[in-house]
Amino acid sequence: MGSVEGAVVMESNMNAAVAAAAAASAAADVEERNNDESMITNLHLHSIPTLNLDQGDPTVYEAYWKSVGENVKISISASQSLSYFANPNSFCWFLVPKLEQEIKILHSLVGNAVVDGRHIVVGNGSSQLIQAALYALADPLDPPTPITVVSAVPFYSCYPQITDYVRSGLYKWGGDANAYDKDEAYIELVTSPNNPDGEIRGPVVKRANGMLLHDLAYYWPQYTAITAPADHDVMLFTLSKCTGHAGSRIGWAVVKDAEVAKKMVKFIEINTIGVSKEAQLRAASILEMISANGCSGGFFEFGQSVMAERWKKLREALRGSEVLEVPHFPLKYCNYNRDFIGSNPAYAWVKAKPGVQLEKAMNEERIRVRGGTSFGCPSNYVRLSMLGKHEDFDLFLKRLPSIIQLLAV
Amino acid sequence: MGSVEGAVVMESNMNAAVAAAAAASAAADVEERNNDESMITNLHLHSIPTLNLDQGDPTVYEAYWKSVGENVKISISASQSLSYFANPNSFCWFLVPKLEQEIKILHSLVGNAVVDGRHIVVGNGSSQLIQAALYALADPLDPPTPITVVSAVPFYSCYPQITDYVRSGLYKWGGDANAYDKDEAYIELVTSPNNPDGEIRGPVVKRANGMLLHDLAYYWPQYTAITAPADHDVMLFTLSKCTGHAGSRIGWAVVKDAEVAKKMVKFIEINTIGVSKEAQLRAASILEMISANGCSGGFFEFGQSVMAERWKKLREALRGSEVLEVPHFPLKYCNYNRDFIGSNPAYAWVKAKPGVQLEKAMNEERIRVRGGTSFGCPSNYVRLSMLGKHEDFDLFLKRLPSIIQLLAV
Repeated sequence: MGSVEGAVVMESNMNAAVAAAAAASAAADVEERNNDESMITNLHLHSIPTLNLDQGDPTVYEAYWKSVGENVKISISASQSLSYFANPNSFCWFLVPKLEQEIKILHSLVGNAVVDGRHIVVGNGSSQLIQAALYALADPLDPPTPITVVSAVPFYSCYPQITDYVRSGLYKWGGDANAYDKDEAYIELVTSPNNPDGEIRGPVVKRANGMLLHDLAYYWPQYTAITAPADHDVMLFTLSKCTGHAGSRIGWAVVKDAEVAKKMVKFIEINTIGVSKEAQLRAASILEMISANGCSGGFFEFGQSVMAERWKKLREALRGSEVLEVPHFPLKYCNYNRDFIGSNPAYAWVKAKPGVQLEKAMNEERIRVRGGTSFGCPSNYVRLSMLGKHEDFDLFLKRLPSIIQLLAV
Repeated sequence: MGSVEGAVVMESNMNAAVAAAAAASAAADVEERNNDESMITNLHLHSIPTLNLDQGDPTVYEAYWKSVGENVKISISASQSLSYFANPNSFCWFLVPKLEQEIKILHSLVGNAVVDGRHIVVGNGSSQLIQAALYALADPLDPPTPITVVSAVPFYSCYPQITDYVRSGLYKWGGDANAYDKDEAYIELVTSPNNPDGEIRGPVVKRANGMLLHDLAYYWPQYTAITAPADHDVMLFTLSKCTGHAGSRIGWAVVKDAEVAKKMVKFIEINTIGVSKEAQLRAASILEMISANGCSGGFFEFGQSVMAERWKKLREALRGSEVLEVPHFPLKYCNYNRDFIGSNPAYAWVKAKPGVQLEKAMNEERIRVRGGTSFGCPSNYVRLSMLGKHEDFDLFLKRLPSIIQLLAV
């Protein structure tokens, strides 16, 4: 099966244990998929299953976590963590101290963010932290009208909805940062590497009264070269994209200003009265294990191998085609790897010829992706997740030629 | 020590194992407190420690959970629950099926809510579910002005802030439900038993265009008689007040209308992309254990004993005083106990003579409580938590005579 091959032919610098684990897990995926497929076949005779490459559900890392087996198992008794409080004397009173410690250790090891003297705020994923940061940054201005929130196209498809869903009077979505030309205060969301296109980004507005919110969910070695420790006012990270534990709903902010950090905590206090202690305890164990394994043969090495392999396969499948394009990324020196590496983003930002309805075309081939309009772009673009299961990714590659053929007509 | 006595003299219908566990845990609390006190004494010579009876942090149940020991321990491996999805084919795609099942089993056993044919929505605590319900109920109206949210005084102190903190254009806080006399649509929050005063409540506005949101966090046998299964449009519950696991941030809504339930799920999707799977798995284990133990010698029996004991002690301490009053509750037939029982609410709603600044007076005695104004009432009222640690509660009782003396002057 394709996905087993995929696991076996992984990059040669991947250690044997990890490769074996990946192969075993890929085989399990195949079995699971076969069961799913036979179920679907029974229900809809002769139909082919729909592949979901829409969400960035990071099941790509499952093989690694299966390989570590019982080593990172956590146990929680019924009498543990009853209280709302994890650290009553800290400004972030719901943050488990061990998690704060492991977050700081990991950033120091990877070298992707300055954490010394910074304030860590834990959230229920980085979506909640974006809202907490908007609340914290908008609040001191006490604006008679809501502050404008912008991000350069293509921007993360959820930003408009996250900003506007409760019609807040504190902040409102303002669209493409490139088009912002007002003198009023604004908040610019800077996503780097960018979702959906993987580009390394800085702010684009650069006007007076601007505040920046850096979403660094993908600034980890499996996706891009770590060129310097990021050192911005508010930086957001999430376990989902760092380790693949999306089900845990753990994100964190690294914040320079104590008052901003306190207001973010206030938001999370009102919104959800903190963050699950069970999820924090597990996240702490997982980060501890990653740091303990260090830079060689560990999680990020697995992540780099598997992402590089997927991108290689995708580029091979598109080679010679003039109807679909994906971005190319320059090699950059990675301080973590101590070598030049390319980018292997979490998503492929696929471009067809202008006028093509690419999401619709892929849907007709039973491939669910997210159309360009969700990202503020034309509909000849789609984002497809590179983070799903091996088997799904390989099935996608098998169906790609027919899509290319269809579009070439 | 007071708290050990407290545990030992618990009501005679409490089984021996539970009583022993309570005594052991109370002793541990004493040790912890002694350590805390000696630390504080070193820092602030001759000062007495501040007792926190402000938050409803439900550590009162710790003794029970210590007594069950390893029996309800959950273990989660690193490869479990990576995905955002817990049940991809359900409308509430982030709800762990086992938790849904255990929620329904427990409600059926206790008899406090109709769950057959109802939709369960899990949230990060019931605070998030309140917001999800406001979003769901306000949304279909698409109002040019935000819908008014009211609750009868004394109302839960967090309702105004939860409603207004992001200045939503969908809903706004409207204060005391008794004063609502408009013809426009409104949402009434009905809390029963009520926080802070323990009263059993129904809606008070009863006008056309009204929508009801029932917060039933305290409708469990340890607080009040279960007189009938509640059967309202939207009912909110939380693990914090049911079992004492506040640190887990697990709440759930029981919802009649499928469209309302779907919109609540949409809110939680945008707000936090679901709810921690670790917390849900642990909650499922805990609820399963409670249901397995049934109606005798189990968690609710412990809860009833410990709450009844605390209320008995508080009433004894206030006996003969004319300066402080707490509410009295009639005996009611409890379907769960199959007997007449009194109410032993999670909070004591304490009233002093008009004009007394009761929160201030208690603060001066180093007792942190929540003042009446937070609940829409005069400042001669305070809410004090009955849910804290044994030792804190007993220290409070020891200091109560001096407060009474002070107020009697």
